[in-house]
Amino acid sequence: MKNILIIGAGRSATALIKYVLDNAEKVGWFVTVADADPALANEKVGNHPYGRAIWLDATKPNDRKAIIERADVVVSLLPASLHYEVAQECILLKKHLVTASYVSQELYRLSEQVRNSDLVFMGEMGLDPGIDHMSAMRVIDEIKDRGGVLTAFSSFAGGLVSPDCDTNPWHYKISWNPRNVVLAGRGTAQYLEDGKHKYVPYHRLFKEHRIIDIPGVGPMEVYPNRDSLLYKEVYGLDGIPNLIRGTLRYPGFCDAWHALVQIGLTDDSFPITDCAELTYLELMEAFVGDAPGKNVREKVANLLEEELESQVMQQLEWLGLFQRKKIGLKPSSPATILEHLIVDKWKLGKQDRDWIVMYHEFEYKLGGKKYLKKSVMTLEGDNPVYTAMAKLVGLPLGIFVKYLVTGGIRESGVQIPVKKSIYEPVMKELESFGVVFRETETLIK
Amino acid sequence: MKNILIIGAGRSATALIKYVLDNAEKVGWFVTVADADPALANEKVGNHPYGRAIWLDATKPNDRKAIIERADVVVSLLPASLHYEVAQECILLKKHLVTASYVSQELYRLSEQVRNSDLVFMGEMGLDPGIDHMSAMRVIDEIKDRGGVLTAFSSFAGGLVSPDCDTNPWHYKISWNPRNVVLAGRGTAQYLEDGKHKYVPYHRLFKEHRIIDIPGVGPMEVYPNRDSLLYKEVYGLDGIPNLIRGTLRYPGFCDAWHALVQIGLTDDSFPITDCAELTYLELMEAFVGDAPGKNVREKVANLLEEELESQVMQQLEWLGLFQRKKIGLKPSSPATILEHLIVDKWKLGKQDRDWIVMYHEFEYKLGGKKYLKKSVMTLEGDNPVYTAMAKLVGLPLGIFVKYLVTGGIRESGVQIPVKKSIYEPVMKELESFGVVFRETETLIK
Repeated sequence: MKNILIIGAGRSATALIKYVLDNAEKVGWFVTVADADPALANEKVGNHPYGRAIWLDATKPNDRKAIIERADVVVSLLPASLHYEVAQECILLKKHLVTASYVSQELYRLSEQVRNSDLVFMGEMGLDPGIDHMSAMRVIDEIKDRGGVLTAFSSFAGGLVSPDCDTNPWHYKISWNPRNVVLAGRGTAQYLEDGKHKYVPYHRLFKEHRIIDIPGVGPMEVYPNRDSLLYKEVYGLDGIPNLIRGTLRYPGFCDAWHALVQIGLTDDSFPITDCAELTYLELMEAFVGDAPGKNVREKVANLLEEELESQVMQQLEWLGLFQRKKIGLKPSSPATILEHLIVDKWKLGKQDRDWIVMYHEFEYKLGGKKYLKKSVMTLEGDNPVYTAMAKLVGLPLGIFVKYLVTGGIRESGVQIPVKKSIYEPVMKELESFGVVFRETETLIK
Repeated sequence: MKNILIIGAGRSATALIKYVLDNAEKVGWFVTVADADPALANEKVGNHPYGRAIWLDATKPNDRKAIIERADVVVSLLPASLHYEVAQECILLKKHLVTASYVSQELYRLSEQVRNSDLVFMGEMGLDPGIDHMSAMRVIDEIKDRGGVLTAFSSFAGGLVSPDCDTNPWHYKISWNPRNVVLAGRGTAQYLEDGKHKYVPYHRLFKEHRIIDIPGVGPMEVYPNRDSLLYKEVYGLDGIPNLIRGTLRYPGFCDAWHALVQIGLTDDSFPITDCAELTYLELMEAFVGDAPGKNVREKVANLLEEELESQVMQQLEWLGLFQRKKIGLKPSSPATILEHLIVDKWKLGKQDRDWIVMYHEFEYKLGGKKYLKKSVMTLEGDNPVYTAMAKLVGLPLGIFVKYLVTGGIRESGVQIPVKKSIYEPVMKELESFGVVFRETETLIK
C-alpha cells in the first residue's frame, strides 16, 4: 500500500482530498493530510478508514522532513515560495512531488538530480496553470499532427460566480486567494500581435480591456496577463505571430477595478500607519487631490473623470469606500485594506456557486486554407466549499497521482503537463467529472 | 599630518577634491583619491604636492580595507548599497566615515558601536540630502528658540539647467545620475496637509504637479517626494499639520514626463528582448493599443488625450521617440532605453551651466500672530564639469571633514547634519562659496 501525503487542507484541497479518499480502496493507498490547523484537516478527512489528519507546521524543515519520509508521493499545496525547499527534501528522501504552483527557474535547475533519482516533480498541475496547459496542448498537438501551422493562439480563463448567483454590481465573488485578486495584473502585461511584442503597463491594464464573445457563454471582458510569452517555447509555438493569455471578467468589472488602481488602492508598497482610526471615506480623501469646496465623492469622480452617479461610482459606493466606518486594522498597505473589504463584500454566500470559464482560440493554416478552432469549458461549483475552483485545482493533482502510482504515467525530472503521455489520461478522466471542452471549428479563409 | 581618503572620483567628486586639495597645506592633511578609473582620479588630483591618485576596485573588501587602514578619515562617494560594508570596516579599523548618501536603518543600528569607538559616521552630508537638512534646521531652530510654533513646512529642490542655457523644449538637462532621473518619483508620494496624510501614486504624480512661485526665481512646477514624512521626527516637527518635500522642475516638464510614465517608458521591471533591432517608433507602437487606420503618432496622442501637435507631443518628438532609428541596445528595460536616450539629448553642452534651486517655506505662530518665512538658495555651475551639483554635494563633505579634523566639530555615533553644532560651521563656510539662502518674512494673520 502506497502512502500519499497531502500538505495543506485549505480551500483548494477540498476536491483533491475527496478524490484521493474516494479512490483509496480501489488504488490501494493510504492518505495523510497535514495542516497547521488540525481541525481543518480532520474535517476534510472525516473518519475515512484510509485517511488520517495530522498537525504540521510546514515552515519547520525538520517537522516537514519527518512526515515526508513516511510518504511515497507528496502533494504540496503550500505557498510556491516553499516549494524549492520541499523539493530538495524530496530529492534527499527519494519521494515524488506534485504541486499546482508555477515552477520557478530555481526548481527547473533541480531537474537532472530529480531524473537521476528516477523521480518526477510535476508542477503547474492545477487549473491555471494546469488544465490550461493540458487542454491547449491537446489541440495544438492535434493540429500539428494533421500538418497544420498555428498562426494565432489565445487562452483566457476566469474564476467567476455562476450567472445565477451574480447578485452584486461588480459581478464578482471570490473563489480563490483574495490577496491574489487584489494584486492581479501587477507588472507589465505582454503579448504578441502580428509578430510584434505588445506591452500594457498595469496603470492602463484594466482600462484597456477588450470584450470578447465566447460561444455558449456570451460577452466577457478580458485583460492580458503578464506571462503570455512565457509558454511560447514550452508549447512549441516558436515563431507564432499572435499569442495572448488573459483573464476573464463579467462586463462591468474592469472599468471599476481600473478606478481602484487609478485611486491607488491596489498599492502594496507602503503602510497606511493610521488605519486603525481612519474611516474608509477618509482613506479615499487621502488619495484625492485638492479641489476646494468639493466633497470626497466629487473629488473622486473628478479624478476618475466619471459622472457622480455613474456605474463605476456606484460600484465604489457599494464596496463601502465612501462609508464613515473605521477601517480598524493595524498599519496595512492600501492593498491589504482593500483585501479586507472585498473578502467580506465578495464572499460566496451559503447558496452561491462559483463558475470557471476557460476559452482557447486556435487559428491555423492547413492545405492552403485557414481555420479557426474555438474551445470552451465551463464548470460550476456545487456549493461555496466544494467549488469549481477547488475541483479544477484538486482533481488534476489527484488524477495525476493515481496514474503515477498505478504506473500509467512514466516520466521523470521536473515537468509541467504539456506532454501527451501526461495530459491524455488526466484530461480523459477529468471528463467524467464534467470537465469538457466544447470545440467548434470554422473555415475563415 | 592627517590622511584623508576619498573613494570615488566621478562627477560629484570634482568640487570635493578641489576643496580638500586647496585646503591641504593650511589644514595639514594629505589627500588620497581612489577610483576604479585611475586616469580619472589622476586628472582630478593633477600633480598637487599634497595629493595622490590610486587605483581601487571598491567592490573588493580586502583591497578596500588595505587602503582604509592608511587613512584617518574616509569620505565615500560609493553607491549607498556599499556603505554598510564600508562602515563595518571603518569600525574595525577605527576611522571616521563621511558620505552624502541616505543613512539606512541598518547603518543607524551601528551607532552605539561607532560611539563606543569615539568615531563619527556622518551621512546625508551633500545637497539633498544634506544642505536641505542644514538650511531647514537653521530656520526651524531659530523659530523655536524665539518661542514660535511651526504649523507648516515645505521644502523643495531641483537640479536644473541655468535659465541662460535652457535651450530645449523639456527645459531640462542632466547634472546628476541619469538613471535616477528616469526612476525619480517611483513609489507612492506622501505628505501631510491639515493634519491628514495625503498619498499620490506614481502614475498620477507628474500629472498632479502644482505650480509654485519662488521669490526671485519665478513659477516652478513641483511634485511631492516619497519621503516627506521621514524627517518629521528628526527635524523635531512632531505634530506639525502640514509637511511636504518635493522636487522642482521648470514649467512644461511634468506634463511631458507624465506622458512617458503613462506610455510605460519608465518601467524598469522587464526587458525588451528585441531592442537591438527595434526602432524607437516601433517601441512606441508596442506600447499603444489597437486603433485601426491610425499611425503611431495618432495612437500615442489618443492614449495621452493630447492634440497631435500639442506641446507634449512635440516634446516626445524632440526626444526622438518617433524616429525610425534602431535602439541598438542589448535586451534592456524601457527605463534603460529611456536613460540611453536622455543621456544624449539632455547632456550639458560645453558652454552649459547647471543650476540648483532650493526653496523652503516655514509657517509659524508666535505671540498670537502667524508668520510666513521663505528661504531661497540658487547656485549656478561654472561649467559642465565644475557644476553647481558637484559643488553642493562636495563642498559640505569637504567642509565637514575640515572641522572634524581641526576639532571644530565634536560629535560621535551615526549622524545626519541636523544639529546646530554641525550645520552652523558648515553653512557659514558654504556662504563664502556663494551658497546663500535669501530669507523674507511676512505677517500673514
